[in-house]
Amino acid sequence: MPATINLSCPLPTEPDTIQLAHGSGGRWMHQLLERVILPALGRNSPARHDGAIVEPGAGPLAVTTDSYVIRPLFFPGGDIGRLAVYGSVNDLAMCGARASWMSVGLILEEGLPMETLRRVLGSMAAAAAETGVEIVTGDTKVVERGKGDGMYVNTTAVGAVRAPRPIGPAAVRAGDAIVINGDLGRHGIAVLSVREGLEFEGEVASDLAPLWAPVERLLQAGLEVHCLRDLTRGGLSSALNEIAQGAKLGIRVRERDIPVNETVRGACEILGLDPFYVANEGRFAAFVPAEQARAAAELTGGVVIGEVTAERAGIVLLETTLGVQRPLDMLSGEQLPRIC
Amino acid sequence: MPATINLSCPLPTEPDTIQLAHGSGGRWMHQLLERVILPALGRNSPARHDGAIVEPGAGPLAVTTDSYVIRPLFFPGGDIGRLAVYGSVNDLAMCGARASWMSVGLILEEGLPMETLRRVLGSMAAAAAETGVEIVTGDTKVVERGKGDGMYVNTTAVGAVRAPRPIGPAAVRAGDAIVINGDLGRHGIAVLSVREGLEFEGEVASDLAPLWAPVERLLQAGLEVHCLRDLTRGGLSSALNEIAQGAKLGIRVRERDIPVNETVRGACEILGLDPFYVANEGRFAAFVPAEQARAAAELTGGVVIGEVTAERAGIVLLETTLGVQRPLDMLSGEQLPRIC
Repeated sequence: MPATINLSCPLPTEPDTIQLAHGSGGRWMHQLLERVILPALGRNSPARHDGAIVEPGAGPLAVTTDSYVIRPLFFPGGDIGRLAVYGSVNDLAMCGARASWMSVGLILEEGLPMETLRRVLGSMAAAAAETGVEIVTGDTKVVERGKGDGMYVNTTAVGAVRAPRPIGPAAVRAGDAIVINGDLGRHGIAVLSVREGLEFEGEVASDLAPLWAPVERLLQAGLEVHCLRDLTRGGLSSALNEIAQGAKLGIRVRERDIPVNETVRGACEILGLDPFYVANEGRFAAFVPAEQARAAAELTGGVVIGEVTAERAGIVLLETTLGVQRPLDMLSGEQLPRIC
Repeated sequence: MPATINLSCPLPTEPDTIQLAHGSGGRWMHQLLERVILPALGRNSPARHDGAIVEPGAGPLAVTTDSYVIRPLFFPGGDIGRLAVYGSVNDLAMCGARASWMSVGLILEEGLPMETLRRVLGSMAAAAAETGVEIVTGDTKVVERGKGDGMYVNTTAVGAVRAPRPIGPAAVRAGDAIVINGDLGRHGIAVLSVREGLEFEGEVASDLAPLWAPVERLLQAGLEVHCLRDLTRGGLSSALNEIAQGAKLGIRVRERDIPVNETVRGACEILGLDPFYVANEGRFAAFVPAEQARAAAELTGGVVIGEVTAERAGIVLLETTLGVQRPLDMLSGEQLPRIC
């Protein structure tokens, strides 16, 4: 049964955890907005209306959305707030677009410590300022204890397309080189290490990072960028499979050229994981004409790991360090739940 | 501990509930997208890339976001899918903007029946087609059993502003008339009736409805619309309080002019609820110059319920049917959790 309204009940001092009433649309929710959410977002505070008005210039816009359900909320190298901002900024970057505006949807579980909410929002504000994205509108819902897991965050980002031609699997050509901007697997292993209380030799921090800057360098250098894809859920392997299938072309990559940090490699061996399937949050693959491969690697601080082939459409082949070729399939089954 | 990858494992026939692997970014997730999500969204299927490209015309855009956590997922007069589409379409309408593009973020709980997902997505597709909004991009996450409640949906909508002047509390003027487009409280009572297994004399279905059409009529008739606000969480009372505070003006409304269906009134009495605090999903308040009040009521099928006053800034006064004036406060505490 619902609680009845008690109009004369004075507001208690601010509770130190989220209550159901914080999602009611009434005075508690306004107090939460005024005292916690808007101050924490600082200059990135959205206006208090049903939506926000933005003034785009001429030309196409890119739109992307992601919900973030990562567990735990804080991990070495980041937290759900920073992830939620960078993640959607990065998805737009993969469209050749720079994020300008962002919405934030919070689903809070009753009992979430207010201090946790403040920390996460502080991270969001810092990440938004860093990447030049403006949080223009938001929404807060509260679900009962046991119907969430602390907090879930949705961000939807909008920004102008800066790439001069369409970027996507359809633009990939046989002969294209594939460049990645760094070593693989750190995000997944970092999250897993805190979640499962594992200790590895050497520390592993997430590779979480905003990706517009390296993409902008590729575009400003005039490179003919055919496709970009961040290597998040499902890792390198799933990304390459998606693109091979979308482009109806084959992909061949060389294991010896794909950088994996020694600690990550060791952790993967112990855990029975393949680093090519582990999620990254600051890594992407760029598909460019072969003659631009070296330039792309230099501009992104990365390496050339393989190429696109006309034969074996839809298949990703890995040339192992032993010189054998084996298919690098799409992830089958569950590897690491709730990594983003 | 995470499951290891089994590359040779054939995919089982489609499971009839959501599994954690459906959120992994791998083959199961692709299967879910290809076989369930994209077909269910029909012509509203988003493209398979990190984001979508849209081509707005010149002029400002409005952006809005909402997460929908309503319990139960299906209720008399609608379901979470229809609510998630109309809800964000309506928030844009309140900005004087017509929704053109929408993102959909799904957070699914492990064990959700696939059939439930299909039904909800089917509702979303129908509601999107009806309102002329295109679902351009999406995201699906899966959380463990007991970390969600079936499903949560975020929608973020973008669309061109059609209003010739800014709409919002800052545009409200003393003397403005307040018009609402119908009777209050049906959504909250309909949801509550199924949630708590209550039976009332007479059926109550939610008032859930898209609101762009009546707003467009106001704009096309050339009315000087100062503010629009949908009467969702916190009901009429919270909406009016927000506007009175935002406008730094007083509001006076007359109880006898505010329509409440007899069954809703009876249910509220039994439950100790005030219909002015109960959520609606197809009702809004429009603030227009007094001389346009009648026209606004006719165009929206509604009624004039009160006016804005220069005195008593920030206060909403209700003139009761007994002729006394009492403050209509913002909802304090929790009335009906998870009504949207």
